[in-house]
Amino acid sequence: MNRQRRNFLKNSALAIGAGAFTELPNSLFAKNIPENFRTGRMKFSFRPYTLELKHVFTLAISSRTTTPVVLTEIEYNGIMGYGEASMPPYLGESHATAQAFLSNVDLSKYENPFELETILADIDALAPGNPAAKASVDIALHDLIGKLLNQPWYNLWGFNKAKAPVTSFTIGIDKPDVVRQKVKEAEEFKILKVKLGRDTDKEMIETIRSVTDKPLTADANQGWKDKHYAVEMTHYLKEKGVLYLEQPMAKEDVEGNAYITQHSPIPILGDEAIQRLVDLKKAHEVYHGVVIKLMKTTGMREAHTMITLARALDMKILLGCMTETSCAISAAAQLSPLVDWADLDGNLLIKNDVYSGTTVVNGKIVIGDKPGIGIVKI
Amino acid sequence: MNRQRRNFLKNSALAIGAGAFTELPNSLFAKNIPENFRTGRMKFSFRPYTLELKHVFTLAISSRTTTPVVLTEIEYNGIMGYGEASMPPYLGESHATAQAFLSNVDLSKYENPFELETILADIDALAPGNPAAKASVDIALHDLIGKLLNQPWYNLWGFNKAKAPVTSFTIGIDKPDVVRQKVKEAEEFKILKVKLGRDTDKEMIETIRSVTDKPLTADANQGWKDKHYAVEMTHYLKEKGVLYLEQPMAKEDVEGNAYITQHSPIPILGDEAIQRLVDLKKAHEVYHGVVIKLMKTTGMREAHTMITLARALDMKILLGCMTETSCAISAAAQLSPLVDWADLDGNLLIKNDVYSGTTVVNGKIVIGDKPGIGIVKI
Repeated sequence: MNRQRRNFLKNSALAIGAGAFTELPNSLFAKNIPENFRTGRMKFSFRPYTLELKHVFTLAISSRTTTPVVLTEIEYNGIMGYGEASMPPYLGESHATAQAFLSNVDLSKYENPFELETILADIDALAPGNPAAKASVDIALHDLIGKLLNQPWYNLWGFNKAKAPVTSFTIGIDKPDVVRQKVKEAEEFKILKVKLGRDTDKEMIETIRSVTDKPLTADANQGWKDKHYAVEMTHYLKEKGVLYLEQPMAKEDVEGNAYITQHSPIPILGDEAIQRLVDLKKAHEVYHGVVIKLMKTTGMREAHTMITLARALDMKILLGCMTETSCAISAAAQLSPLVDWADLDGNLLIKNDVYSGTTVVNGKIVIGDKPGIGIVKI
Repeated sequence: MNRQRRNFLKNSALAIGAGAFTELPNSLFAKNIPENFRTGRMKFSFRPYTLELKHVFTLAISSRTTTPVVLTEIEYNGIMGYGEASMPPYLGESHATAQAFLSNVDLSKYENPFELETILADIDALAPGNPAAKASVDIALHDLIGKLLNQPWYNLWGFNKAKAPVTSFTIGIDKPDVVRQKVKEAEEFKILKVKLGRDTDKEMIETIRSVTDKPLTADANQGWKDKHYAVEMTHYLKEKGVLYLEQPMAKEDVEGNAYITQHSPIPILGDEAIQRLVDLKKAHEVYHGVVIKLMKTTGMREAHTMITLARALDMKILLGCMTETSCAISAAAQLSPLVDWADLDGNLLIKNDVYSGTTVVNGKIVIGDKPGIGIVKI
């Protein structure tokens, strides 16, 4: 047995852990490592799933009652890592594109699941675009690694989970009586997010203000066409107790959005305009802040890098989401102790979640203590 | 036993791991967690030590034969984390200042050693300055955490250790025959670093070129006084096969250094001018790149953040060091797979190392497989 083990260690192509396991008998975590550790290979699988929304979801440019997602799994020596791609139709990904992309993902060739820098660069290079599909691999890898280390990611990143912020809750565009009903249902939340970008914007705000004086946030989803109108609206929103505004005009309109940022009394955040790290570098003089979503950033690792960069550039950070299961929401929540604001309500807007994980208590994000991204299958 | 364990988990002030240990029976790493885990407290200690240099070390503005260091230890449930502060005298820290600073460090009040973001912010706030003393705490915490997880930090950061670069080896300013002897002793190294900044600069380069055609790097250590002379020198150095130049003029001379950067055919790196993250933000239009050293950055965590920022800003990165034991050198080496160049020879320049860790094989940094920063006491 000892000799077998020595031979295993000696012959292992991957030396990681070899010294560790033999040199540190007192380690709290290192005992009973199975003989086949590091001889296993990651097995990747995925399946399409359709989220059913509790309410019809109306944004500036679309309405829908479902969101297509793909659920991923990585199995490694009996440990399972879970991931998810969420693909609101207007962003261009679908069940078909994600499955086509993921069919080309081969994780079995990597001997060391910890080598995220290399593995995720390879995944990214498989094809351009496909950020949600890429995120579904990144999230499952993070979940797996956290479970191998028996630690949640907020701990591996060194964050204090008590610093997780409150989350806003989204009130979609709707008729006044439905809006008032939604506000009542959102009683637990300390901040409400209002979808704007249509000709009913002030009516939406007035309707909500008729039933609550909670702080609001606003998201125009590129819906406004005139920068002067948009600046007027920022002053109106400030008066109405709105904390910040997301993406007032089309993402391509750099000059228009920059003009609004220069003249707004509330922070202007780039969302559609800032997908990945490369966009953030260019956008830091156009917006006060950035909306970071795992489905844009290709997952947790690039999101973490973008948060690091945004903080270094003194940009405000909103951590957002799509309609997602508790898988992607709990993954994002691991990053939340480092951000200014969170809008992680995507799992609360759906009827058929398949995981439990991060919860919201008195409006505040409560990150669980489970390892990895902190979820279990329902 | 089971009941005791349940009570321990239920009563634990720190929930971390509680869910994990009970929910994940198959975890590879989580078995036999002692009953007292998370009930322990970190115990911090330190002692002064003096490194003896193999050669008299002559820079642009000083010569010496020793370097004062302080060696730190953190003990937590029987696991030891090791750290180090190295304090070349011209940088302003000393045995006295470091010991005074470290006397105010109380790690026993933290229940969760993983909470680096909070702990290191507290340490940083104890007093301004003292970057090496602060680094000695940061490094010991990283070593401890890596050992608790039984993983080296390159793995926790997701790097591929095979991508660690070659390291340059420093040839100090000296008489020609001594310089030639030093070059011979440095046979194993693929790149030699030449200390410049005096009136013997061209003589130094010619002397080295008389015995080797290896690629060189140059460090003026703020020694040059005229930007036009400095630009002329960069062209001379380019002709002589020098890859990059560190800190040509005084760190305060932003305009002069920026002028050199604009006109140099080789990359100009800021070293003395860029100590911490806040300096890097300001310096990225003054220099092509940055020299990152743990004794400037206050340790591994801010160094990692600075590397992330420098990469995002398309700056070149040289990972450097002071004369240090294998403790701080091995800590820095964990970051080396992400940088363009490394100059991690500080432990090779001393006679009385007290640790073994990272090695150099055929000029290339070889990061060990041991957990934490990867060192053992000699």
